[in-house]
Amino acid sequence: MPDINPDRLLADLQELRQIGAYKTGVHRPTFSADDIRSRHWLEAKLTEAGLDASIDGIGNVIGRCRAPGGKLILGSHLETQPHAGWLDGALGVVYGLEVARALGQGIDVAAWTDEEGHYGSFLGSRSFIGALPEAEIDRCRFREDGTPLRDALARAGLAGRSRVQIDPARYLGYLEAHIEQGATLEDAGHRIGIVTAIVGSHRFKIVFEGVQNHAGTTRMAVRKDAGVALVRLANAIYDRFPMVAGPRTVWTAGHIALDPSAPSIVPGRAEMLFQFRDTDPAVLARLDQELEALVAAANRDGPCRVTLTEPGQSVPRAMDAGFQDALERAAERHAPGLHQRLPSGAGHDAQILAERLPSGMLFVPSIGGISHHYAEDTKPEDIVQGCQVFADAAAALLAGG
Amino acid sequence: MPDINPDRLLADLQELRQIGAYKTGVHRPTFSADDIRSRHWLEAKLTEAGLDASIDGIGNVIGRCRAPGGKLILGSHLETQPHAGWLDGALGVVYGLEVARALGQGIDVAAWTDEEGHYGSFLGSRSFIGALPEAEIDRCRFREDGTPLRDALARAGLAGRSRVQIDPARYLGYLEAHIEQGATLEDAGHRIGIVTAIVGSHRFKIVFEGVQNHAGTTRMAVRKDAGVALVRLANAIYDRFPMVAGPRTVWTAGHIALDPSAPSIVPGRAEMLFQFRDTDPAVLARLDQELEALVAAANRDGPCRVTLTEPGQSVPRAMDAGFQDALERAAERHAPGLHQRLPSGAGHDAQILAERLPSGMLFVPSIGGISHHYAEDTKPEDIVQGCQVFADAAAALLAGG
Repeated sequence: MPDINPDRLLADLQELRQIGAYKTGVHRPTFSADDIRSRHWLEAKLTEAGLDASIDGIGNVIGRCRAPGGKLILGSHLETQPHAGWLDGALGVVYGLEVARALGQGIDVAAWTDEEGHYGSFLGSRSFIGALPEAEIDRCRFREDGTPLRDALARAGLAGRSRVQIDPARYLGYLEAHIEQGATLEDAGHRIGIVTAIVGSHRFKIVFEGVQNHAGTTRMAVRKDAGVALVRLANAIYDRFPMVAGPRTVWTAGHIALDPSAPSIVPGRAEMLFQFRDTDPAVLARLDQELEALVAAANRDGPCRVTLTEPGQSVPRAMDAGFQDALERAAERHAPGLHQRLPSGAGHDAQILAERLPSGMLFVPSIGGISHHYAEDTKPEDIVQGCQVFADAAAALLAGG
Repeated sequence: MPDINPDRLLADLQELRQIGAYKTGVHRPTFSADDIRSRHWLEAKLTEAGLDASIDGIGNVIGRCRAPGGKLILGSHLETQPHAGWLDGALGVVYGLEVARALGQGIDVAAWTDEEGHYGSFLGSRSFIGALPEAEIDRCRFREDGTPLRDALARAGLAGRSRVQIDPARYLGYLEAHIEQGATLEDAGHRIGIVTAIVGSHRFKIVFEGVQNHAGTTRMAVRKDAGVALVRLANAIYDRFPMVAGPRTVWTAGHIALDPSAPSIVPGRAEMLFQFRDTDPAVLARLDQELEALVAAANRDGPCRVTLTEPGQSVPRAMDAGFQDALERAAERHAPGLHQRLPSGAGHDAQILAERLPSGMLFVPSIGGISHHYAEDTKPEDIVQGCQVFADAAAALLAGG
């Protein structure tokens, strides 16, 4: 089996970490100046590794192997959540680069645009599999300030470039490596995770409409306080969901905003971004019904109007059984007894690629399970070992199993 | 009794309304360019009315009567809440101007700075009664963007100007007119309100500290979600306060923020601005205890840490009995049977002036009770009649009761 180069791997990760460094982490939102720099950095690294590298019309960085024969495509993403960790996404991309170098041939490498969802949902990987219409690109805007994606692409010098589409005949499959972003491996003392399935998520914006008024002069009896309506519904969700959810379901209200959000004004409007995730479609359907019932009850009770808007969802996606086996065999070789199979609670580009190609994912441990925070980290020995396992599995799959 | 000039009164209000016009209301935050323009507009109007007018070192516009003899000081404020109504504050200031003109002498007029609390708490009226230390001015910042008050004063050309202080011997008392900002008068079919007392308010920033993490990979059992802690405490407040409050108590969480407030991140920190108001100090004390007990219970139950920070309060303040009688007699003359006494649920500069001078307040009806919103309005006939009542009461008080 091919040996990866641990020093080169760690040096590349450290170099990439400097682009948008924030405290001990990285701030590199999609199409920020630092994000664009990181894409050019990768393009140069892939070229240096002998791949035919380019950045396409959605910002995907793709390095193609020039040799004949079946290929695996390895990838992840370069952009980060705000003020987030240095490995999330970057690890899988640099693993791809290192495995391409270690194997010498058979590996294409990709950095998919906007896995972190600053402008949309899995834009890069969806573009690659042919599931991102031009009209959707027209509508996408930066969540922070509303900048159109088209403007961001133009500023990055990518307007008018074609978008690279998958040639399914070229590929045996897709492999992605990632930090676990949870503490399952660490708690079990394991060093490698083999992903069985990626959860599906259902997402909603819940809007509460009341009447804005003065917080001193408006009697409680006549108020239509949209903030109170939000608190009441969120509380009902937190009471009911544990009774209806599965053992691994998670649910989160990550964003709440009152309008106008002033201390002495009764809010006339409020909104909450709410999501839940599970690998079981039946559980997701049951939670949909529960949420709709709670919203209906809130509207029945009044006094504010509650609406479920902007629903979005991804379906749960199983990883290929043969790819899981290949990853497990490689893990057992390097970390005997210190690996496990587990579902991914986070979404990943692999769930998109899996629609068109056999796909597999490998996890390395996250220290303390911390993720989407600049304190996120993984031990260097886990980073190095994970890459070696990844390289072995890729070599085995290219060799026919 | 002196006749006011209805056309002049309404024309002045309409002129002032143009400064910072927003839809049907006004956007004139403290020391915005439009707010500063409005202060110069008033200074010119007061000068034109024969008063000795100036803008002092905190931005108060004060017009002083040049004639000898006891004086009343009449005032309110010029700045507005964001995108708020055209009469809130402006009405009382222009009433002062009109009454000064109608009576010819005995009236000083003031526009107090920042009653709306963009930089601090009652800065102008507290400065006037000698209750605003220089060190507090050093610390005050614009709530929206953190601009130091000192910078705003310098930009307005007021840095280094002295601050006018009250000469209690000069005054018989203070009178303020204001829109009701509630619907008590309208619901009763009344046209004049005589304020009995101004509520006291207790204000808190409640901070929730948990652990930020990934919303897909962090199991529910190990989460420390600061947003959930906020919802749980707010819900408990909304359950308990009705049992402990008085019949006219009001309580409001006008501002809620999660950190980092992203859809797929478990919030590690959250905060809520919470306040309650009542005219009865015993009720306020009881609610303090209740809130502290709920916070203690939240900390006992975990998993997040909850802290009551930045407490602020104003004490309930009764209006002078003689001033109430004078306002009531004038109201009965012009609107027989169509007036009532009522407490003020909103804070007003009169509660500050009342610490040093006998004080009284008159309310005119707010259409639909709407306030702090650009839709706020009062019928022209109510505006005119309110000013005549105000003028009669001022004349009677100057004449000795």
